[in-house]
Amino acid sequence: MDVSSFLGAKAQRTDEALDRCLASWAGAPALLVEAVRYSLFAGGKRFRPALVLGTAEIIGECDTPALPAACALEMIHTYSLIHDDLPAMDNDDFRRGRPTLHRAHGEAVAILAGDALLTMAFDALGEAGNATVIREVAQAAGAAGMVGGQLLDMAAEQTTPTLDELRRVHAGKTGALIRVSVRAGAMLAGAQSTQIDRLTVYGEQLGLAFQIADDILDVEGDAARLGKPVGSDAARGKATYPAIVGMAQSKTLAREAMQAAIDALDDFGCEADTFRALARFVVERDC
Amino acid sequence: MDVSSFLGAKAQRTDEALDRCLASWAGAPALLVEAVRYSLFAGGKRFRPALVLGTAEIIGECDTPALPAACALEMIHTYSLIHDDLPAMDNDDFRRGRPTLHRAHGEAVAILAGDALLTMAFDALGEAGNATVIREVAQAAGAAGMVGGQLLDMAAEQTTPTLDELRRVHAGKTGALIRVSVRAGAMLAGAQSTQIDRLTVYGEQLGLAFQIADDILDVEGDAARLGKPVGSDAARGKATYPAIVGMAQSKTLAREAMQAAIDALDDFGCEADTFRALARFVVERDC
Repeated sequence: MDVSSFLGAKAQRTDEALDRCLASWAGAPALLVEAVRYSLFAGGKRFRPALVLGTAEIIGECDTPALPAACALEMIHTYSLIHDDLPAMDNDDFRRGRPTLHRAHGEAVAILAGDALLTMAFDALGEAGNATVIREVAQAAGAAGMVGGQLLDMAAEQTTPTLDELRRVHAGKTGALIRVSVRAGAMLAGAQSTQIDRLTVYGEQLGLAFQIADDILDVEGDAARLGKPVGSDAARGKATYPAIVGMAQSKTLAREAMQAAIDALDDFGCEADTFRALARFVVERDC
Repeated sequence: MDVSSFLGAKAQRTDEALDRCLASWAGAPALLVEAVRYSLFAGGKRFRPALVLGTAEIIGECDTPALPAACALEMIHTYSLIHDDLPAMDNDDFRRGRPTLHRAHGEAVAILAGDALLTMAFDALGEAGNATVIREVAQAAGAAGMVGGQLLDMAAEQTTPTLDELRRVHAGKTGALIRVSVRAGAMLAGAQSTQIDRLTVYGEQLGLAFQIADDILDVEGDAARLGKPVGSDAARGKATYPAIVGMAQSKTLAREAMQAAIDALDDFGCEADTFRALARFVVERDC
């Protein structure tokens, strides 16, 4: 299956499950649900759910056991975008071509919608029923993972980090959630530990390639395709791969990470072909 | 055991466990851990952990299986205070006689410290290993529980709610977490469903009594004992029991809830005496 058909199919499956998930928030204030829907159904690529579901399919015959975890990972990703956009954080007015949630519904509602998404993600994970997966996701999203990475990222705006420091920021801010998406899908589908180990390397290298490609696109991308202005990282003084190691070396590092991701799938057969293509897509995409 | 010895013993047990919990956040940025410690060790009464641990003891012989859940409930309670204090929410400068976290460390750090506490609470709950408990806690803290209650509470500042609307606010904002503290303790100690049902009624009525007493203390309490100025609810136009049904009726409702909580323990013997005393303490306390 080609990558865009794969991503499209998994996005549709995730959207339907997220819709059922929100329908189960009986008793929640209507404004809260409306705010959550505004951000959750804003045209995201559902990249993390696709990793959860795709990994489960590589291991098992179907992705169903992993579907609640796919929803949970997207809910955690969406909450992180809502909170990162807040005035006290990145202070962004637009995301995916629309006003950010705090611009549309006010800061208090945005804070609470993020809190609700993060909390309810663990209700969804509880449905999957595997306490080890719950702990791994919490650790990946938490103090030493995504939240910690966001704090380091903001601190890095005041300084010029080294390449190692930049890697640490990205490993937390974007890498940890991508890595755990793959691990959660594998574990929920009943993978053996050697399979989980190989897929973990795939997830780590894919996340790295994804982030370097993102940094490159912010310099060389097309604003219309990206749905956001290019050059925003540089304008904000964000530490990026092109800023620290230059554009040519950034492209080399992105391709090395892509190849390392593909190599990590050597023990798998044609059932992992889509994931091999996904690694190429992540580096070669234009949005 | 008298109530203050009970609360003191459970607070010490919780503090030690929370300290071990934070020590396990290896790899988290030092500033994040410092901010979390600032709010987590600020002299809270550890009321929710005491309910978790006390319930476990009523059911079983020891409270150990429930200890990770006790930590998780306190982490969720603390995150909710940090986010509620933010300028976009209640905009409070002081809590327990000290600057609020965003006054001490800035808004971005406060948002992230709250996010980290909420996330890592589910790592702690995962340690307890019961997916049903995890889902119940997420639902109690989430969109139809605490987060929803906070949103309704803010909306109520613009209007004069009815008594029923006020009850709905409190059931979410403070009631849900108190109720689930009791349920989590019972479930993790292996309670039978009839025991869980009775203890749930206790938790609901205790939470109600707690909230009415809080509202009364904000009018009649002693600022020095409370560690905060009295009259702050009225100054802010907060909907409270005294504001809506008057002081005399508020005191009647508090005592009725207290008695209903005590009555719910009728099937239990002397092992529940501390919980009976706790229901009286909640209404008769002066801070």
